[in-house]
Formats: sequence, C-alpha cells, structure tokens
Amino acid sequence: MGKRGTRVIAEFSTVPLGTGSTSLSGYVSKAYAVVKGSGLPFTLTPMGTVLEADGLEEVLGVVAKAHEALFEAGAERVSTTIKIDDRRDKARVMGDKVRSLEGRRRQ
Amino acid sequence: MGKRGTRVIAEFSTVPLGTGSTSLSGYVSKAYAVVKGSGLPFTLTPMGTVLEADGLEEVLGVVAKAHEALFEAGAERVSTTIKIDDRRDKARVMGDKVRSLEGRRRQ
Amino acid sequence: MGKRGTRVIAEFSTVPLGTGSTSLSGYVSKAYAVVKGSGLPFTLTPMGTVLEADGLEEVLGVVAKAHEALFEAGAERVSTTIKIDDRRDKARVMGDKVRSLEGRRRQ
Amino acid sequence: MGKRGTRVIAEFSTVPLGTGSTSLSGYVSKAYAVVKGSGLPFTLTPMGTVLEADGLEEVLGVVAKAHEALFEAGAERVSTTIKIDDRRDKARVMGDKVRSLEGRRRQ
Repeated sequence: MGKRGTRVIAEFSTVPLGTGSTSLSGYVSKAYAVVKGSGLPFTLTPMGTVLEADGLEEVLGVVAKAHEALFEAGAERVSTTIKIDDRRDKARVMGDKVRSLEGRRRQ
Repeated sequence: MGKRGTRVIAEFSTVPLGTGSTSLSGYVSKAYAVVKGSGLPFTLTPMGTVLEADGLEEVLGVVAKAHEALFEAGAERVSTTIKIDDRRDKARVMGDKVRSLEGRRRQ
Repeated sequence: MGKRGTRVIAEFSTVPLGTGSTSLSGYVSKAYAVVKGSGLPFTLTPMGTVLEADGLEEVLGVVAKAHEALFEAGAERVSTTIKIDDRRDKARVMGDKVRSLEGRRRQ
Repeated sequence: MGKRGTRVIAEFSTVPLGTGSTSLSGYVSKAYAVVKGSGLPFTLTPMGTVLEADGLEEVLGVVAKAHEALFEAGAERVSTTIKIDDRRDKARVMGDKVRSLEGRRRQ
C-alpha cells in the first residue's frame, strides 16, 4: 500500500468489564495467546500489546480475535482500545520508534 | 454472537500527521463520507464518531476504510484510535448509554 | 496560552474494573456528578464525556476528581482514558468541530 | 490513597498536528526531556511512554508539561492521549504487569 517495506504499528488492550475480581490476568492471558499465535512481531508493555504488520487488516484481525477470546473465557462485556500509527512514506519497524528517541537522548 | 439484539458500540477518530495545516477538516470529511456511506447508525461528537453495529468486524471494516480514505486524500501518515464497548448480556443501542445517565440525573 | 479565546477540548471516560456487574451506570453517575459540578461546558456521548475549558489544567482537574469519585463509590481499580485536542491558533468551541463537518456535508 | 505502596500506572502520547513533516521526532524529544526530568520511573514503548507514580496528580502534571513542551517547540495544535490504570487493592510496579503475563506463558 505504501512504499515497499512500510509497516503498520498498532497498540491495543482488551479488558473485561464486570468480572468479579480486580485481577484480570486470567483474561488477558487469553488475548496474549491469540497475539502469540498470530505470528506477528509484538512487544508487551505494561499497558498493552504493540503489534507490527504489513497492513491494517492484518492488525485488526488479530485484535478482533483477542477481543473475542475474552468472551470465550466467560466475559459478558469487553472494552477494547486500539491505536494505529500507519506511516507510508518511510520503512521502519516498531523498535525504530524507541531507538530514534533514545539516539537523540545521547546526543 | 451475544443475545439476540446485542450491539457493538465503538468510537473512532482518524487524523493525518504532518500535513502542514492545523485545519484537518478536509481530511476528516473524507472519513465522514465513508461513515455515511456505510449505512450504520452513527453520531458525530466533537472528538470522533460513534458507530453501532451487529458485530465487531462490521465496525472495524468501516474504520479501516475511513483510515484508508485519508491516504487517498494525500496523507502520508495517519493516526487512528478506536474504542470498542461490546456488551453481550443486554440489548441496547448507543442512545441508551446517554439516556441511562440522564435519567439518573433527573432522579 | 494561545490566542485570546482558544479552548482546550477533551474527551474522557472512566470505568471501574472487577466490580462484579456489567452494568456500570451507578459508578458512571458519580463521575457525571463531578462533571456537572465543575461548571464547564460538556456533552455526553455514548462513549464518554467531552469537556471544554480555557486550559489543560482545568480539564485534568475535573477528570482527576471524576476518577477519584469511582474509588469513593467503592471501586478498587479504575481505568480512565483522556484524549485532548488543544488548538491555539484559532478560537473555537466544541460544537464547531461537529458543525464544520456537517456544513461540508451539505455543500 | 490506596494500600501502602499502590502505584498509578499510565501511558501517554503527545503529537503535534499540522506540522509540515511526517517525522515528529523533533517534537517527541521535547516531551521525552520532560519525562526524563520528572524523575518518575518510565518505559518508552513504540507507541508512547508508560509512567508510574504514587498518585494521579503527579502523572497528570508530567503529561501536562510534556504537552506544553510541544507548543514551546512551535506546534500550534497538539493531540494528547492518556490511559490510566489505578489499582488500589494491591501494590505493584509497572514491570509486574508484563511479568505476570510472561510467567503464565511459561506454564
């Protein structure tokens, strides 16, 4: 879609609402299994999962599956947020965004 | 997927980055045309568009098209955020969420 | 901070996690009372509350109070999202953002 | 506010709109300097910065300064998103959220 090698970078998080415990890790681990199974490069952060893919549809497909996994685990209401950064004028991978900033720091 | 009549409610916004003008309405109107063309019920808010659909895939399909419309309008980098509220234990439409709160206000 | 009359427009939503019921309106009404009590112009949307203020600190003060109100109502974990649009080259109010788009629609 | 040792964990990102280049790293580095100068523990991710603090006000103060730094660097419109996870029933630090998930992975 963009120049050869451009990648969509996106972060998402998915949480069940109205479960009986403030600990959500049982649910979150189901979403995590979907991400791992997708084969896409990803990074876990304390607030979500960052994914990288060739196109937006691929990212949204993984997020939709992770969202669905929470219902399969028993949730009746799920809140999911997605933030997409799609840059098509320059090839880069997700690690570049952090490195670019850290490189400036050292200067 | 959930009980008969349950609906996914989602908000999204999509903005181009690096366009040279702080006014984005030319781009935003392209995304708006996609939303209108989708036939889904929607509400414009000062910070985004709220959509309602039978399933998540339908919502994500519209958002992906709106996101793509900004590239077609000349953007080279697009930032899109999506927030999904998917409740499957109770049928409701998007207006109910506001009415539920306003009803309490009057009590 | 910006030109005379420029306003910060922001949307937020605050939800308790782990409360045992998918219905959150009892909690959300506490946050709503804070918003009403703030005296700031606001709009309820199906996915959050949009506020308008002279400066960011004012907005963040209201959101922090609304977030705290959920703990006072018994929540032990609260998830809050805030999205800020701060434009300082042009005076506008939150209704303008919707009108600008709808005006284009009619043309 | 919560149990002794509970911490607020939050992610934010701040971007200028309407600048003439899709590369934002010059602006983002100003926000980064604010984060570093705050003395709070933080992690850079490809999509934002995760902070940890004793209370919400501390987090919001840093985000407000980072947001302001972009105007000081010449931006005329700035979009900032913040997502807060405030859990008061259990002491934890931001690394725990990732470790909790990765621990489950190995089982």
